[in-house]
Amino acid sequence: MPTIKRIDHVALVVDDLEAALAFWRDALGLRVSQTEEEPSEKTTVAFLPLGESEIELVQPHTADSGTAKFLAKRGPGMHHLCIEVEDLEALLARLQRQGVRLINETPVTKPNGVRYAFIHPKSTYGVLIELYEKPQ
Amino acid sequence: MPTIKRIDHVALVVDDLEAALAFWRDALGLRVSQTEEEPSEKTTVAFLPLGESEIELVQPHTADSGTAKFLAKRGPGMHHLCIEVEDLEALLARLQRQGVRLINETPVTKPNGVRYAFIHPKSTYGVLIELYEKPQ
Repeated sequence: MPTIKRIDHVALVVDDLEAALAFWRDALGLRVSQTEEEPSEKTTVAFLPLGESEIELVQPHTADSGTAKFLAKRGPGMHHLCIEVEDLEALLARLQRQGVRLINETPVTKPNGVRYAFIHPKSTYGVLIELYEKPQ
Repeated sequence: MPTIKRIDHVALVVDDLEAALAFWRDALGLRVSQTEEEPSEKTTVAFLPLGESEIELVQPHTADSGTAKFLAKRGPGMHHLCIEVEDLEALLARLQRQGVRLINETPVTKPNGVRYAFIHPKSTYGVLIELYEKPQ
């Protein structure tokens, strides 16, 4: 039986990471736990813990990535909502039975063992959702 | 010293609450804790707990409310991110010192004692943020 656990992160696309940190870190007062380059995504990401969740600020470096196209089309803002679940495969099967459109019909595994799948925003009422399962 | 505690809720504007619940409740598997009419906002809101946070689905009833205008302009999707804080007044003062544009420069108090203030999305990199403080 799949379990929905928590909001893992809210990812925001920004055009200027340092300027965005002037709000999120310096004015609002969140702490940056980590900043990393993600060469495969052509982005830099800053992670700011917030309760049991994180705010992730994503700055694209090139014009051809998914986040860069989002930024060009819609401007800075929320890119996706990531939800931690247990038993991701069973949940994806249930979503498909209910007619939900999935971007990843089977989980994708990251080098660190985390598995994820994206749900298409057409099925969620406008929000790109990442489902995320930690390695057991 | 203001404290940033957790994501209280992520509010999504939808054009058809029952259809949105077919995804969020029936397919994804979240529980609806409460559904309420908000006459002053001209909306119906469904609350779905998710870890220490909630997803709030907001359906406007008329064309003249803020959420209805958002829906007409952008379509269904994330409307705002609400963050629970302690010492809201001190935080608002710090935000103003840092040049952050506030929609509510002083906290607004709800009948239940909760106090809130919205930050303008121009200052947050595209996300409307509600700051929220529970009564002590």
